[in-house]
Amino acid sequence: MSLCNVSLQVIPTVMEDRIYPVVDKVIEYIESTGVKYEVGAMETTMEGELEELLEIVKRAQEICTEEGASRVVSMVKIDYKKEGVTMDEKIKKYRK
Amino acid sequence: MSLCNVSLQVIPTVMEDRIYPVVDKVIEYIESTGVKYEVGAMETTMEGELEELLEIVKRAQEICTEEGASRVVSMVKIDYKKEGVTMDEKIKKYRK
Amino acid sequence: MSLCNVSLQVIPTVMEDRIYPVVDKVIEYIESTGVKYEVGAMETTMEGELEELLEIVKRAQEICTEEGASRVVSMVKIDYKKEGVTMDEKIKKYRK
Amino acid sequence: MSLCNVSLQVIPTVMEDRIYPVVDKVIEYIESTGVKYEVGAMETTMEGELEELLEIVKRAQEICTEEGASRVVSMVKIDYKKEGVTMDEKIKKYRK
Repeated sequence: MSLCNVSLQVIPTVMEDRIYPVVDKVIEYIESTGVKYEVGAMETTMEGELEELLEIVKRAQEICTEEGASRVVSMVKIDYKKEGVTMDEKIKKYRK
Repeated sequence: MSLCNVSLQVIPTVMEDRIYPVVDKVIEYIESTGVKYEVGAMETTMEGELEELLEIVKRAQEICTEEGASRVVSMVKIDYKKEGVTMDEKIKKYRK
Repeated sequence: MSLCNVSLQVIPTVMEDRIYPVVDKVIEYIESTGVKYEVGAMETTMEGELEELLEIVKRAQEICTEEGASRVVSMVKIDYKKEGVTMDEKIKKYRK
Repeated sequence: MSLCNVSLQVIPTVMEDRIYPVVDKVIEYIESTGVKYEVGAMETTMEGELEELLEIVKRAQEICTEEGASRVVSMVKIDYKKEGVTMDEKIKKYRK
């Protein structure tokens, strides 16, 4: 199976001061999965097989509710090519 | 498991005149799955269990490439609550 | 100038039971502008000139904070063609 | 006026090998505006006043069509707080 990119932004319905701690828990989980990822200001982008990354997206919803969110709205973007897509081919030239 | 809402917009890299036919194939597939859905101008929103709807999102990428897209960018939004979320609770009052 | 489509989803940081009332205020404002729009389960899609619709997006952020949101995350999608894009060309065949 | 974050992903309808060159033209334009920004794999995030950043979003659509795109779908996300939001408060701890 080929690599694709999936970006995830979770917006948990919690008190304002709980937003970053809950988001950090999701990033901690993403770190634990071993997939390549980069945290951006509006989303975390991951690189891997689509099935694996959508499983991470699913688990992230559950982590937010386990962390006390009464609701979660998530924004997911997928960049998919049969031959595969890497994060580096898109950002390497922009990183000093 | 509770109901959630997932919206999907596929943007296949094809010639301009092939965009709507490829999108129609994805909608045809969504129709075949039997989930509740509504086609909007910028996305199709579905109602069901998260796992089932993410499986549909995954298959939609494959359909686009099978229909000739060299690449697919998709935008997916998830509205998730343990108690469940319905499309009607959000749009009923706005539909004459 | 040509017509384009802009969809807007506002996610105000408020108590859970305040989300729909705040979203309703934004839709009320969109109604007052006179632009063509449709409320969907995950976003409201508008049709008009890009400048006008982005002005509405901007005002919507302010309305959420005036309604008590400590923060607002919004998801905006734009479908732009020099010759113009209409909502009907994308959804008419799907509406009974 | 306070700082907010706006992220932009442009998806121009062009031949596959023209996608990155057209996206690079938009990033070149963003660089020319002097706003703080970071290029990510799925979007470029900017920091500034909402009006200024939405003006950049608008111009980006025109640049894509000037570069030969027959159509442009863009995904824009806004993170807005009256007191202001910075990119650093969200990503500094994740950048080695």
